[in-house]
Amino acid sequence: MKKVSIITACLFLACGAIAQQPSPAKPDESYVRPYYVQKVSLHQQLSNTKNGIVFIGDSITDGNEWAEQLNCIRCQNRGISGDISAGVLARLDDILAQKPAKIFLMIGINDISRNIPNERIIGNYKEFVRRTRTLSPRTRIYLQSVLPTNDTFRKFVDKNDESIKVLNTAMAEIARGDRAVTYIDLYNRFLDAEGRLDKRYTNDGLHLLGEGYVLWASILKSGGYLK
Amino acid sequence: MKKVSIITACLFLACGAIAQQPSPAKPDESYVRPYYVQKVSLHQQLSNTKNGIVFIGDSITDGNEWAEQLNCIRCQNRGISGDISAGVLARLDDILAQKPAKIFLMIGINDISRNIPNERIIGNYKEFVRRTRTLSPRTRIYLQSVLPTNDTFRKFVDKNDESIKVLNTAMAEIARGDRAVTYIDLYNRFLDAEGRLDKRYTNDGLHLLGEGYVLWASILKSGGYLK
Repeated sequence: MKKVSIITACLFLACGAIAQQPSPAKPDESYVRPYYVQKVSLHQQLSNTKNGIVFIGDSITDGNEWAEQLNCIRCQNRGISGDISAGVLARLDDILAQKPAKIFLMIGINDISRNIPNERIIGNYKEFVRRTRTLSPRTRIYLQSVLPTNDTFRKFVDKNDESIKVLNTAMAEIARGDRAVTYIDLYNRFLDAEGRLDKRYTNDGLHLLGEGYVLWASILKSGGYLK
Repeated sequence: MKKVSIITACLFLACGAIAQQPSPAKPDESYVRPYYVQKVSLHQQLSNTKNGIVFIGDSITDGNEWAEQLNCIRCQNRGISGDISAGVLARLDDILAQKPAKIFLMIGINDISRNIPNERIIGNYKEFVRRTRTLSPRTRIYLQSVLPTNDTFRKFVDKNDESIKVLNTAMAEIARGDRAVTYIDLYNRFLDAEGRLDKRYTNDGLHLLGEGYVLWASILKSGGYLK
């Protein structure tokens, strides 16, 4: 039943998005792919952790072993490769039903690559915060910046950077206006001297190597965000 | 340095495979893709767990949250989406250097889809066992059967089944001849009445939904393999 309800919710949200914007380059329901459904159904089976520390996002979040890296059995990976901000919203209520202690969000780069307008992505960030505050008021919210990309790998064309900066500025602003929300600037920590995602941390211009995850974890630890 | 050495090892193994079989349909080095390199570099950064329980495999292993599902902080996910048996061997020494308590292997379906001959896959299973026994003699080895597929989804054509049965029979035989090795028959537990991967457990004929991972975990628990 739960599976049916989330799929219905996904379709409903997707249809809503289409209704608002009749002809986007690629409509929002693109996130409902087999892998998305597999992971959502898994997450529903796993949802018993108390005081969870939940990492929500796309392939960049999905790619890490958070519990193992942070030696933290209540750290939960809720990254889904390919996900976008609307896909996160469609599965957010399931996550909030657990009343997690903390939520770390990183989402947006796939929205950009699907030509979803910045305003809609930012609207989804705001809805993420609004709904979390409503459904789980004691959950601490961490909005992590979208990471830079590196166009020298040629796989991921870097017309992204302007949008990334717009999204990150918007997240910082959301956090400034809400004491329950913290913005974490990872973007500037992953840059090389030319303003691109440092090659030490990536082998394709978008995804992270092990050293990238070590840096990410060290920023979360040294910032005291995991306490 | 470690990263360089594993890439060198991968290339060396791949070249070796090519030297033995000059023109396979798709040569073995196909596993050295960006995602493979990302995960191997992450695993190298994570390699400090004592008495680890390591799940090694491809996307089917990769897709689960083992530590969370089994409530087991020493359970480590070493699945890499797209991996084949040669790719497992290329990263096995890194894993064995930790002297894990247990290793659970599930590999072979991508070998089959790449038209790698059964004999070579079985040879790689034997090499996996031989090398584990040599480099980490106290590690308990669990050879998990390759799961069935379901051709009614049409994405993954099910000419696989004959090869899957050959591989599973071979693994059972390897285990019969070695007290340090246990064969775990998952295959028959995932079948429907028509001899296909049951639709309760999959939405694409190959990968698992949450219910599939629940079944898998319950088989491991009820068999006493995790103790």
